[in-house]
Amino acid sequence: MEDLSRLCIHTVTTKPWPIEEAAAAYVRAGAGGISVWREALAGRNIRQTGQMLRECGLTVVSHVRGGFFPALSAGERQAAIDDNKEMIDETAELGAPLLVLVCGAHPGLALEESRRQIQAGIAAVLPHAEACGIRLGIEPLHPMYADSRSAVNTLAQASDLAEAFDSDYLGVVYDVYHLWWDPHLERETARCAAAGNLLAFHVCDWKTPTEDFLLDRGLMGEGCIPLRDIRGWVEAGGFDGFIEVEIFSRQYWAMDQNAFLELIAAAWRSHV
Amino acid sequence: MEDLSRLCIHTVTTKPWPIEEAAAAYVRAGAGGISVWREALAGRNIRQTGQMLRECGLTVVSHVRGGFFPALSAGERQAAIDDNKEMIDETAELGAPLLVLVCGAHPGLALEESRRQIQAGIAAVLPHAEACGIRLGIEPLHPMYADSRSAVNTLAQASDLAEAFDSDYLGVVYDVYHLWWDPHLERETARCAAAGNLLAFHVCDWKTPTEDFLLDRGLMGEGCIPLRDIRGWVEAGGFDGFIEVEIFSRQYWAMDQNAFLELIAAAWRSHV
Repeated sequence: MEDLSRLCIHTVTTKPWPIEEAAAAYVRAGAGGISVWREALAGRNIRQTGQMLRECGLTVVSHVRGGFFPALSAGERQAAIDDNKEMIDETAELGAPLLVLVCGAHPGLALEESRRQIQAGIAAVLPHAEACGIRLGIEPLHPMYADSRSAVNTLAQASDLAEAFDSDYLGVVYDVYHLWWDPHLERETARCAAAGNLLAFHVCDWKTPTEDFLLDRGLMGEGCIPLRDIRGWVEAGGFDGFIEVEIFSRQYWAMDQNAFLELIAAAWRSHV
Repeated sequence: MEDLSRLCIHTVTTKPWPIEEAAAAYVRAGAGGISVWREALAGRNIRQTGQMLRECGLTVVSHVRGGFFPALSAGERQAAIDDNKEMIDETAELGAPLLVLVCGAHPGLALEESRRQIQAGIAAVLPHAEACGIRLGIEPLHPMYADSRSAVNTLAQASDLAEAFDSDYLGVVYDVYHLWWDPHLERETARCAAAGNLLAFHVCDWKTPTEDFLLDRGLMGEGCIPLRDIRGWVEAGGFDGFIEVEIFSRQYWAMDQNAFLELIAAAWRSHV
């Protein structure tokens, strides 16, 4: 796409920058949106920071990230619920419409039990989200994170979970890095969109080889993800929101971040 | 299990040992079987090596590994087919009944195209396998290998592929490392077994954290895979063959291999 107005960047993508510097740079680059990681707000007034972002001309697309519901003890599970309610409050203060949920998993629990605890956790926090007018977005994570980050690993599982609740305030966050390999991705994308659950769309790429389980994501076009096909399926379902660049990368964080931002804009124009 | 007679070890598990030393050590440990990686046969007469293994008292369970069918050019695809035919010949010389297929993937090809090329590759080599009396086993690989090692990433996909051919000489190799996260594992295990396609069963564990995409597998019991549950599903389907320990691990390869073999036997008794 030539037009960068639908480009949203996650603060973690340019992690070395404080959020004030990131926001100014994103605007200079032509991006229209920002998704804010909790870490980027440390030591700041959240409401004022949200205001500052809007005054820069950015749409605050989402707050990242709640979730991590499964735990071995009831006390830890309650602490996670309390923390998620706090994140919902922070999302409202920030003025973002959406809180992304990385649902969690625990290596000491069966996946089915982690999923039950995730559903119970969502049930415990969803009324607070509804009261605050904040949407919760279940982000399915790649199966390589099934041990400790998420027991929700396919788009079908995320849709099942979203559909188990009758709420306009619960849906799915769709990240190509986690989902590109899914054998039923086209069909499940259509299902997710038709149910009104496709709340957000994250992009990056899968490099060959990938050197690190977490911190070696690629720029769009640098890997094997058929991004144009997937974007087509997502938009065929009616999605016309921001397309969010979320890249965790030791390699890119080590670069000059202005130069990295130029690479993001170029990758956007050539590959999104 | 107390009884080690169904224990089969892959030569790559104790990679520092030459196959002769490995075989003697496996027998001393009480193991009943060995699966032989091609690399372990380098510079040896294959027929005599198979004979040596049987004279030690070991059953030669499988030869590892053929496959890697997808490629960008027809010439490379033909080379893969030729290589697989050679591996089938080697499997027969070794006296193993089964050749494991890691089917392949190419980051420059769509997954669907890689899958078409895999099916075409199997079609091209299966008659030779049948003529030699060798079974081919499709091993689904974890989705984290979908870029370059296998476009077959779920048990359902492997069963679909096996069922697309009407042959007693094609089935599935089932590895808990690749499949444990699968949302439909119990159901698909029953389907695979009922179709007579469950040809082999590989075990190890998934560590938290896992430090390397390839070389950080854990000993049974060291991670989060519900091995007893999965073994129950596999055996409920009628599988009573060898249970194969296949561990790639820089950590364990760096150990004294006799001490590692003791750990394998202990993990077998406590966790398989």
